[in-house]
Amino acid sequence: MQTLLLGADAVEDHATMPAVIDAVAAAFAADARENTIMPAKSYIDLPQYNGDFRSMPAYVNAETWDAAAVKWVNVHLDNPRDHDLPTVLGTLIYSDPETAFPLAVMDGTVLTRLRTGAAAAVATDHLAVADADSLGLVGAGTQAYTQLDAISAVRNIETVVVADRDTDKQQAFVDTFTDRFDVRAGSIEDAAGCDVLSTITPVESPIVDREWLGERTHINAIGADAAGKQEHSERTLLDAKLVIDNYEQCTHSGEINVPWGEGTLTDTDLHGELGDIVAGTLSGRTDDDGITLFDSTGLAIQDVAAAHVVYENASDDGDGTAFSLVDTETS
Amino acid sequence: MQTLLLGADAVEDHATMPAVIDAVAAAFAADARENTIMPAKSYIDLPQYNGDFRSMPAYVNAETWDAAAVKWVNVHLDNPRDHDLPTVLGTLIYSDPETAFPLAVMDGTVLTRLRTGAAAAVATDHLAVADADSLGLVGAGTQAYTQLDAISAVRNIETVVVADRDTDKQQAFVDTFTDRFDVRAGSIEDAAGCDVLSTITPVESPIVDREWLGERTHINAIGADAAGKQEHSERTLLDAKLVIDNYEQCTHSGEINVPWGEGTLTDTDLHGELGDIVAGTLSGRTDDDGITLFDSTGLAIQDVAAAHVVYENASDDGDGTAFSLVDTETS
Repeated sequence: MQTLLLGADAVEDHATMPAVIDAVAAAFAADARENTIMPAKSYIDLPQYNGDFRSMPAYVNAETWDAAAVKWVNVHLDNPRDHDLPTVLGTLIYSDPETAFPLAVMDGTVLTRLRTGAAAAVATDHLAVADADSLGLVGAGTQAYTQLDAISAVRNIETVVVADRDTDKQQAFVDTFTDRFDVRAGSIEDAAGCDVLSTITPVESPIVDREWLGERTHINAIGADAAGKQEHSERTLLDAKLVIDNYEQCTHSGEINVPWGEGTLTDTDLHGELGDIVAGTLSGRTDDDGITLFDSTGLAIQDVAAAHVVYENASDDGDGTAFSLVDTETS
Repeated sequence: MQTLLLGADAVEDHATMPAVIDAVAAAFAADARENTIMPAKSYIDLPQYNGDFRSMPAYVNAETWDAAAVKWVNVHLDNPRDHDLPTVLGTLIYSDPETAFPLAVMDGTVLTRLRTGAAAAVATDHLAVADADSLGLVGAGTQAYTQLDAISAVRNIETVVVADRDTDKQQAFVDTFTDRFDVRAGSIEDAAGCDVLSTITPVESPIVDREWLGERTHINAIGADAAGKQEHSERTLLDAKLVIDNYEQCTHSGEINVPWGEGTLTDTDLHGELGDIVAGTLSGRTDDDGITLFDSTGLAIQDVAAAHVVYENASDDGDGTAFSLVDTETS
């Protein structure tokens, strides 16, 4: 038996966004139904390299499919400057849960980007107004491109406003999408007034004011992924219908972690987890809702879901490189 | 940048036993010096498949080298019968700790077998009598072959006695080594009288009696790797100079776990961890010692050490398959 090797390009080719969104939604629902197993991330902190490794194992039983995987990923902040490498590099082993055979080893960097976009799309689908047609983006990096791809798959987005301190990045984003959307560079305030707002910055002090938001804006808060990070004002967090991806992760390292640690936000301020909304046991947006906010930290079950799509599509297409990796002889 | 793919054969070829023993010894010493990071194994239990997955991440700084890796491994008991696959399948991602780039993805099944043999060799080197020339083996499976390879690298083994209920396996073992050793099939009692004894069975009730052991036999207790398993009598465990690989793992799932859970064995019965002996802060065998026993559960740092040898040797030889797995473009 052979293991399918799928590099970054293969992952990009086979992680078709609508399918990844469906699979990620199914994983969230499975999580709500307790049909997932997701041990806490294990961290290996290496201060001497200004970096860390994380291992993220998970199993998802989404009823029509099940799968297990481990993602091995890192954050090495000096990589771009010192090594001409990305800060984050991911590798994922995707296994048949029935036999544990490693069906595929794939790039986990592109995969992480896509599953993060897909989670925002799932949240947007349940929390944005049905006729949302404008998307604001704060941060014009790689994830901004994925947010637009993903969110435009669940809402009929026509207008896009992108904010970034780096005007070159901002303009590159506009140029990329100008044929498909009414897209323009703008301020954070401009972006915040859109029907959907995705924020994707690593800031530690809020940069989006409460009063800039539209009356019924849905926010995907993507940037905060470590203790101390926060993109939105305390007022926004208190006013919004607040939906999280995972209680442990969000209170520890998500958008809500700082006010949570200070006691400004507590359990009573949370609407609940996205999985419960997808599973239908908790309401999404209702007519009474004003602003909504999805706190996304990124879950191992999303990786499993996205990897499932990549593996199935690549297998169906006969793509990828088959390799005899593990010894399957019985003795 | 490319990742080196190393299948089971390549791991076998490049995990030269003396080098793996040295690297595993260095990893144990690094552990004693607190120059390792080894989060607890994460388990994913899948009773519906009578199996589980384990993710084992670790970092080792052995002074002359450092490395990080995660091994993704399983125990699926129905695999041989239902799927013609081994019970255990492992895959390992080996990374540069400075940048987190995945230098290699390799078979983790053969690797596990070799690093387990190497740990027994390290323990034997410190705990067996210096002139040990006989080795008893209880269990004639794959690990028996590795035990002989590894232990004969640290002691001048001349006589080998192999015990197994399965006489075909027993004879196959004898036939394999008859040119190199004075090797014969025997009972467990015959094997237990040797200078070094390695037990490699999955039994849950002791099968080696205390009185069968030689006066100064060193035992490598390899078989017990889960709660409830035990190969040696309580009397042996109480009489022996008892050395463990890791306190948490051994008390939970090693040879000592059952009497430990019953309170028959306690901290005062333990001599200490192998790493402290290798690091020189705890004695190995002394002239006063009778029987000694090494309780081996298998540590993630052993995998990192063995993977380090495989990767370095394969790289030096220009072996393995280079593959563009992760996206290294910075954006």
